[in-house]
Amino acid sequence: MLRIIARICARAGREAELRVVLRELLPATRSESGCLAYQLFQNADRVGEFVTVEQWTDQAAADAHLASPHVAAALARATDLLAQPPQIHRFDEVN
Amino acid sequence: MLRIIARICARAGREAELRVVLRELLPATRSESGCLAYQLFQNADRVGEFVTVEQWTDQAAADAHLASPHVAAALARATDLLAQPPQIHRFDEVN
Repeated sequence: MLRIIARICARAGREAELRVVLRELLPATRSESGCLAYQLFQNADRVGEFVTVEQWTDQAAADAHLASPHVAAALARATDLLAQPPQIHRFDEVN
Repeated sequence: MLRIIARICARAGREAELRVVLRELLPATRSESGCLAYQLFQNADRVGEFVTVEQWTDQAAADAHLASPHVAAALARATDLLAQPPQIHRFDEVN
């Protein structure tokens, strides 16, 4: 099982557009066979900062997600909306 | 309902000690009446980076957590373990 936390930051003034793109990714992502959980959060005070908290069956599932047509389409739409490339990191839950 | 995502970074060489302190907070935090969920994650590649993903009934519950004896004790123990003050931000889930 693999956990990912990603941070995605909008260019100033493009927050609402990026929110639309990220939100539209939710149903297609959650229907991927290796997706156990995928949540999207928006910073309440710095509205350009989005965080995804993700759970995948394994690395192959996370890789398949990044290579999926819906992510490719979202990245193409988001080119001008991002302040920087998404920061994607693997995490382990501490129990 | 209130969501918090916090980032807590260890000084170089103090990662394991900080992990112990943060892990020991879990049961007391989860037993707080206003705590709906509280997960602790450690970056798999940058082991000094910890993230909590939290769900509280309201702001008062999150404030009560930060003022609790177990958090005060943890902060006292962690003084020398932190690279910087914890970064604590309110988030909204995007559905």
